[in-house]
This record gives sequence, structure tokens and C-alpha cells, in this order.
Amino acid sequence: MSYLDQVFSPTLLINEAITRANIQAMSDKAKRHGKKLVPHWKTAQSHEIGNWAKDYGITEVTASSIKLAEYLCGQGWENIHIAFPFNIRETNRLNRLAQSQSLSVQIVNTDTLNFLATNLTETVGFFIEIDAGYGRTGVSIHDFQLIDRLLEIAKSSDKLKFKGFYLHPGHTYYIQDKAKVHEESRDALHLLKEKYRAQYPDLKTRLGDTPGCAVMEEFGDVDELGPGNFVFYDLMQAELGSCTKNDIAVCLAVPVVDINLDRKELLVHGGGVHLAKDVLIQPDGSKNFGEVVILSESGWTIPSHYSYLKSISQEHGVVKASDELLASVKVGDLIGILPVHSCMTADCMGEYLSLDGKIIDHCEGQ
Amino acid sequence: MSYLDQVFSPTLLINEAITRANIQAMSDKAKRHGKKLVPHWKTAQSHEIGNWAKDYGITEVTASSIKLAEYLCGQGWENIHIAFPFNIRETNRLNRLAQSQSLSVQIVNTDTLNFLATNLTETVGFFIEIDAGYGRTGVSIHDFQLIDRLLEIAKSSDKLKFKGFYLHPGHTYYIQDKAKVHEESRDALHLLKEKYRAQYPDLKTRLGDTPGCAVMEEFGDVDELGPGNFVFYDLMQAELGSCTKNDIAVCLAVPVVDINLDRKELLVHGGGVHLAKDVLIQPDGSKNFGEVVILSESGWTIPSHYSYLKSISQEHGVVKASDELLASVKVGDLIGILPVHSCMTADCMGEYLSLDGKIIDHCEGQ
Repeated sequence: MSYLDQVFSPTLLINEAITRANIQAMSDKAKRHGKKLVPHWKTAQSHEIGNWAKDYGITEVTASSIKLAEYLCGQGWENIHIAFPFNIRETNRLNRLAQSQSLSVQIVNTDTLNFLATNLTETVGFFIEIDAGYGRTGVSIHDFQLIDRLLEIAKSSDKLKFKGFYLHPGHTYYIQDKAKVHEESRDALHLLKEKYRAQYPDLKTRLGDTPGCAVMEEFGDVDELGPGNFVFYDLMQAELGSCTKNDIAVCLAVPVVDINLDRKELLVHGGGVHLAKDVLIQPDGSKNFGEVVILSESGWTIPSHYSYLKSISQEHGVVKASDELLASVKVGDLIGILPVHSCMTADCMGEYLSLDGKIIDHCEGQ
Repeated sequence: MSYLDQVFSPTLLINEAITRANIQAMSDKAKRHGKKLVPHWKTAQSHEIGNWAKDYGITEVTASSIKLAEYLCGQGWENIHIAFPFNIRETNRLNRLAQSQSLSVQIVNTDTLNFLATNLTETVGFFIEIDAGYGRTGVSIHDFQLIDRLLEIAKSSDKLKFKGFYLHPGHTYYIQDKAKVHEESRDALHLLKEKYRAQYPDLKTRLGDTPGCAVMEEFGDVDELGPGNFVFYDLMQAELGSCTKNDIAVCLAVPVVDINLDRKELLVHGGGVHLAKDVLIQPDGSKNFGEVVILSESGWTIPSHYSYLKSISQEHGVVKASDELLASVKVGDLIGILPVHSCMTADCMGEYLSLDGKIIDHCEGQ
């Protein structure tokens, strides 16, 4: 029986071979450069895919929330890092988890670290998040005074263990000169390592963004790479040059419910609740919420003729269809949609279906 | 104990009094015009809120998917209409549900209706969806030939019961002249009723969009009103003039994890996985992913000083904060975010917390 016989409603397909190849390629690259790969598991959010990753030497992962860290506990990860500025309202939950799992948190201010110094009952590591230009969060790379104060606070607690500096240069997603962003980020971490390693000889620096980790070949003395999206990639990453569309490992299978030959459109059951609403703007100014691929028993193929999701609402998706697609599709067929942002699509869908018909788990709920 | 003591992580709050007032106002308006209100339950997706609605005379609801219809079964609804062009791959599921629940589906083409005529084992009603200019889905209002063919197919099956015509004028969301759209939609349904009521004296016409139902006062001979979003409203509806911000019944409570006084920004745990990525463009061209309200034990209040979510990523939200907010907030506090699109936010969050500290259910998963 083909996996397609199990698909009645919108379903997120995962190609295990592509996923493994993506993990292996990044793992090989990290090894080639003498770096440790600590993938951000906010993309996959899965036990089973974690087991695949272990085949390529992955021993630690990063979570985007304490909820995800909780989900990933008990799988034998040597450490789970929660790479979101720590929320002190979740301290009891952190203490509970830390009883049985090595954890680290992310720190960007003294208030949070003071609170943890007073309220931690278990040992927890922490990275100081550094902002080298992205502007979303983190201690400014120039603010040594704040870094020094954070390190002083940590000394006051036997529960807090300083692990190093974490930098997510998210501006590689929208700044043209990605090499420059990457170089500045690398240099920032180098500067911090030079300044603090006499005092903290074991400190690690981690750099984590998929566009940088996928494309750059010079990582200097950075210790750890922490990209996330590369596990699946998506259309946004393909547009950024991080991957080709053939490297995209997940695809939303959607049923065709209507065909409009005059408008050259298909109506599919696949909307914002399935894909999320991330969008690419095409050269002609039109919006692209996902690209159509052709499903078969062995997976999916990217057709030479181009069709894409031109608009989505809560449940509806409208595909602008090529003549070839229009000529071959009928009501009740399934087509595949490559997502614009795979992390968000996986989060919406809450599970995967493998091409051999197995349900693959994903952390549920918010 | 205040409900706030239960909030450690991003949590969707619901104000029952506002929700009930919204349902009552729309129910009163429908009664005043002699129409039946059949709300679209894609917004609330909840048993408990369904029980509230029954207090205002609601006896039927609409679902956006068979999954939601399944969730709503067993609650005593006289009928559940699945207002999405029927997906024939879900026919077995439909047959199973229809054994114990009166259901209707939405039809836009002959292929689907032929399939149902052959494969239905239970009696199921259907509405023909009409497109009077929105352009997303539905039979063109001018295509009487297709309507006649659909009605012929239905006659061939004793399981298919024609119920009437359904029209969702979604273009009231972006076309300036909403009165004109509303009038055209009403006229389209009137035309169809005139043409077909001799043959089908019991046919109903249903018009369902929140901007039209909330604002217009002339519904002609339309039988049923089917808006959805009005149950909660949101910032988009406030911008469209369907409601005021005081009518918004849900609000995402988010923890403040960092404060940047130089940039006048707060970092909160509240991103695309919580709110969805719907966005409003403000007069100065900036983006607004949600508006800040002040939480208290009795609910939330809209402050005179304006703060809003200027950007979101998967988990992060960056608030552009007023001086007043900056002066009063500290790390670890909770603030509220009024959503841009409440249906999507509720779908992301998967449950609600009432102001008296009760968890309110929401249909889970896709």
C-alpha cells in the first residue's frame, strides 16, 4: 500500500532520505571545520527525527521554548539548550526538568539572571546571547559592562554555570551581503572568546543561522554551529541560496477540491492553519505561499512547469496552475506544496507522514 | 486566586462577557431582521463556547473542515454545515459522521456531487456555494447551467438533499465600498431564490461575512446569516469598522523577557506559532502584528498610550512600547496582545483560559 492511500486530508509528508542527507551534509561540514553541530530542534520538534540525527553524531540539541525542551527530555540528549531569553515565570518548570536532564538557558539581562541565582534549585547552564547587529534580542557586542555584571551574578550562585556566548545572526535572512554579516558575527564571537577565555577556559561560542552555516566556509574559532532550518529547508532558504528545491524534505499533501479552467486555478484544502502565512514575493510582485510538486508513490518531483499557491485564507488555498497541471489534475487528486517556511508549517501540522506510511511525531500544542 | 497566577507561558485569554455580548448582539440583530443566525464556528472551534451560544437561541453551526465537524458532533446541534467545497477523499468519514449527526456539505462542481450521489450511504444536505465576485470559490452567479446540472444530479440520489445557496462575500475584507458588495451579494441570492423556489419551496439562502453582517442593516429576503469572526472580533475587524477594540473577546497573555530602553522595545514570548502572522499596515507604513493591552485581575484594558508588536518570528515578539508602558513594565510581567486575526490565533493556541481561571476547549490539531 502506498503512503498516498493514507492521505485523505491535508497531511505533512516527510522524505526521510532527504532529511538524513541534510543532517549528514551539515554534520560533515561541521566536522570538516572542526566544529560541533548542535542543531536547533525548533524545526523538526521530533523524537523520531532526533533518532535519525543521532546516526550522524548529533548529541545535543537546542529548543525554542521550555515546552519543546520538556518534550525532548528523556531521549538521552547530553544537553538541551533553550535558546530563547529565559522567562522567569517558568522557573519552577525549569527546576523540575533540570532534575533529570542537563539543560542550559539563554540570558540577555541581569534581572533574569538575578532571579535564577536566587530561585534555581538545580544546576543549569547558561549562554549569554549576543547581538552583533540583528537587533531582535541579545546583549550588544559592545556592552562589556553588562557581560561582566552577568558573570559576576553567576559567581554568586552554585547553580548557574556559564557556558559561553550564543549568536543568532538572523539578519542573514534579509541583508544582501551575507558574507559580511557572517564575518562580523564570527569576529564578535572571536573577540569575546579572546577577552573571557583566560577566566573561563571552557567557554564555547555558538553561531547559529541556516543561511550562514549552509553557505559559508570560514568559521574562525567559533566552537559550535547551531542552525535549525537546514534539517528540512524550504522555499525561503532556496531563495536565499542555502539549498536547492531538491533539498526540501517536507511537503504538504493537499486534496484538490475544485478546478477553474477559465482562471487556470485549482482550489485546494490547504490554508493558513496548515502552511502558516509566510510568503515570498515573486519577481512580478505576486505572492507565493508555496510551490506545487507532483506526488507519486516514491515521494514528490518538481515539475518543469511552474504552479504555486497565489493566495491562502484560513483553510482555502488557490493554486495558479500551469497548463500542464490543469491538463493532468482532477477533483479528488492530491498535489504537494513545498512550504515557504518549513518550521512554521511543521508547527501548524503537529505530525508528519513518512513515505513508507509511518506517522512521525512532532511536539504538539503551544 | 487570580487567573493571572495560572499564566506562566503564552496563554490565550477569553473574556466570556464580551464573547456572550458579541453573540447576543448578532443574535438580536438577526432576530430583528427575521433571519436565522447560523454562526461559522471556525473562529471559536469550541464545545464550551457552543454552550454559551445556545443561550442566545443558536441551534446550528458551521464548520470549516470535516475535522471540526467531527469535533462538534454529539453536542446536540440540529445541523452542522461544512462550509468548504467538499473533499471527496473524506467521503467515508462523512458517512460515518452522518450516522449520528445531521450534516450538510458545500458543493461547487459536478464531479464532487456525482461522487457523493454514488458513494453516500447516509442522507446529507448540501448547499451550492455561489461566487458573486469574491473569486475564491463557488459557482458563478451567472452559471445557471451548472446550477441546473447540480440539481439534476441531486435528484438521482435519495441521499442528497438540496438545502439552498451559500454565499461568502469575502471581498468585503478588502474592497472599500462594502455596501455595494453586500447589496450585490444580497441581490444574487434574491435572484436565485426567485428562480428556484417554485421547484424547491424550502430552499434557504445564507450570507456569511462578519463585516457585512456586523454593519449592514438591509438583508432583503436572505434567510440565514452565517458570520464567524464576530464571536471574538479582532484588530482587523476593528480596522474594517465591524467592531470597536472594546468588542475584542480574546487576548494573548505574553511574558516580558527583556526590556530595551534605548530602542523603546520589549521582547515578549509571543510569535508566529502563537498569534499566526497576520499583519496590519499602519498609516506610517509600519507593520502591526498585535496591540498591547494592560492585564489585571478583572481582564484587560486598552491604555490611552499606544504600543504594538512591530515584528514577530517563530517564538519572539518585539513590542514598540510607549513611554508609559516602558515606565511601568518589568521583566517577568505579563502583558496582553489583541490579535490581528483571532480565528488564526485561536487555532494556533488550541485552548483558552477564562478570566475565572477555567480552561476552555478548542478543537486540536490539523
